[in-house]
Amino acid sequence: MREIYIVGIGMTRFGKLPELGVRELAEEAVFGALKDAGAKPADIEIAYCGTEAMSPDTPMLPGQIALEQAGITGIPITNVANACGSGSNAVREAWLALQSGLYEVALAIGVEKLTSPSPDQFQMLSRLGGADLMLEGSMGFFPPGVFSMAALRHMEQYGTTREQIAQVAVKNNYHGSLNPKAQYQKQVTLEQVLNSRPVSYPLNVLDCCPISDGCAVVVLCGADVAKRFSGRPVRVRAAAQRSGTYKDDANLRADTTQRAAREAYEMAGLGPGDIDLAEVHDCFTFAEIQHYEDLGFCKMGEGGRFVEEGGANIGGQVAVNPSGGLLAKGHPLGATGPGQICEIVQQLRGECGDRQVPNARIGLTHNGGGFRHGDTGIVTCFVLEKIS
Amino acid sequence: MREIYIVGIGMTRFGKLPELGVRELAEEAVFGALKDAGAKPADIEIAYCGTEAMSPDTPMLPGQIALEQAGITGIPITNVANACGSGSNAVREAWLALQSGLYEVALAIGVEKLTSPSPDQFQMLSRLGGADLMLEGSMGFFPPGVFSMAALRHMEQYGTTREQIAQVAVKNNYHGSLNPKAQYQKQVTLEQVLNSRPVSYPLNVLDCCPISDGCAVVVLCGADVAKRFSGRPVRVRAAAQRSGTYKDDANLRADTTQRAAREAYEMAGLGPGDIDLAEVHDCFTFAEIQHYEDLGFCKMGEGGRFVEEGGANIGGQVAVNPSGGLLAKGHPLGATGPGQICEIVQQLRGECGDRQVPNARIGLTHNGGGFRHGDTGIVTCFVLEKIS
Repeated sequence: MREIYIVGIGMTRFGKLPELGVRELAEEAVFGALKDAGAKPADIEIAYCGTEAMSPDTPMLPGQIALEQAGITGIPITNVANACGSGSNAVREAWLALQSGLYEVALAIGVEKLTSPSPDQFQMLSRLGGADLMLEGSMGFFPPGVFSMAALRHMEQYGTTREQIAQVAVKNNYHGSLNPKAQYQKQVTLEQVLNSRPVSYPLNVLDCCPISDGCAVVVLCGADVAKRFSGRPVRVRAAAQRSGTYKDDANLRADTTQRAAREAYEMAGLGPGDIDLAEVHDCFTFAEIQHYEDLGFCKMGEGGRFVEEGGANIGGQVAVNPSGGLLAKGHPLGATGPGQICEIVQQLRGECGDRQVPNARIGLTHNGGGFRHGDTGIVTCFVLEKIS
Repeated sequence: MREIYIVGIGMTRFGKLPELGVRELAEEAVFGALKDAGAKPADIEIAYCGTEAMSPDTPMLPGQIALEQAGITGIPITNVANACGSGSNAVREAWLALQSGLYEVALAIGVEKLTSPSPDQFQMLSRLGGADLMLEGSMGFFPPGVFSMAALRHMEQYGTTREQIAQVAVKNNYHGSLNPKAQYQKQVTLEQVLNSRPVSYPLNVLDCCPISDGCAVVVLCGADVAKRFSGRPVRVRAAAQRSGTYKDDANLRADTTQRAAREAYEMAGLGPGDIDLAEVHDCFTFAEIQHYEDLGFCKMGEGGRFVEEGGANIGGQVAVNPSGGLLAKGHPLGATGPGQICEIVQQLRGECGDRQVPNARIGLTHNGGGFRHGDTGIVTCFVLEKIS
């Protein structure tokens, strides 16, 4: 397996940014990543764009349109879509293209426009309902419903409490308050979470990630050519991807994250105990509790206690979502995965100021997408390592 | 570069098939390809799905939904989109994944549903208008308009005649009449083409490809593991991809096909004179005339004479679109690229009956997608060789 480095990162702020289109968002993030890498547009040999909802101004070829803003044209550009996991998918395809040995330098861009002055916004948002309209979507089985049912099951099975679930939002909004690029930069109390407007019992508004716009870009290269660039690189120890198997588990507990994480740990030659920090897919507070367990940070069923006791805090056993996560940093679908990678890279470089994780050496990203049959359509995990 | 074989192919008929959804189309084509390869679902290690328009019953994760019908789950599944070139893009990503050495067997599926009993059909079709609504789409500059303007320019510049352009439709509908999977299986006369309903001068209805549904699947593997499968393999000599550079040429003549073809010929170590047959992107009759020139089958400006004199017939200098092409076989966007590959594979195997190209040894596929700035968003070319 070829050693691959990430040599440059760039991202916009995440938030509701209706006046900025795909072009404007991409221009900022792509130029930011090129500058961070010390790279020129002509250095990029192949590119991948992850986006799901298709903005009205880019109904097709979002990658071509976005990258043209930075003068990146002519090269192979592939648009990938895997719901909320589109962006990590783009980064993984870029990594795989470099693994082929046919390319030396690749770029992955994740971008999403979910707010728009156009009336299409509602139509776009209605597509977030679920991957399988025939199976679940037509019965109203949308993501908040999926996770609320799974949460109730977990509470019954393991004694997880409503307060433990809400603590995830308190933690992540605290982290967000330390992140100048986060959509929400204000702390919230446990009471505020518990008293926020109900969505699907037991989940309230503050248990749910927001609607967001944003763009994040990653530049990767073979380790052997990294000297060409002036950015501070990190090593990609693993890039793993698994899709759902749709076992219709009665506890609404699929194993796709476990399988993807296992592949990532095996590829990296390490285990959950080696992970100092992780950016995980907290589309809902309860989802993050599942992820602690599925990623091996704590035993099955103990996720509620783990977050309650501070195990996921900055300075805890493994800092989870130091960026604020999807809940507070935001969730512009295609941009989320590359955004997680941007956070880990900055943490490994020691550039995160008030939210810096001490002694950050090895980080993990976990990004999923698509709900059907009570399972996840795709999960992608990266393991990144500081280069000393 | 690793030697890659195509070991199995499968496809549905192309046509207006409103009662068949993505699931039904995929079931037929995926099982067909697995059977053709002598492969089991569990043999597939990684998969790519090319589709553009997103059917109402698969608003997300089309690959996962389609492949589940054949019991293919759990593996990395990536959905790619590049307008009319989505399907070839999926095949190329599968090829690239095998080039990484991390996988041995890959599957690429292209599928599209453009007819549907739902009212969303019009909404879907409106997205075919162009990649860049801000630039051209909002001014009504849709594909038929693009090609009609380019055709008029070519007629003025080179003396190409209306009859020469129409001859492409006569040829391809003749080929379609010999193809049991084609959407249109009836010959047409030159008069019928010239008298068909006007769309955008000088192009009439019979100069334009139809709205179609369909699915086509390709199974690829490393040459070193092909012995595992009983299908009759062909060798992939090249898989090249280029995107547009948007030079705003006054003749509306971009060079993306030329650049992609050059990369394909260089990768394969051969030239246009070595090509026995080609499946090219005849979205409009005039487009095929451009392709003869851009692919090097004749000199620039001589495409009209080339088709008029029979150079592109079965038995001619290079049989172009022996399947009937997009014009007669049909154009279910994502399925078109893999469908072209299915035709070349069957031709190289000698299985094409009345439309068999004599002495078919080396074939080329050419599949493009997306119009903006008068250029093409993406072009992908494969060179396939008979294994003696």
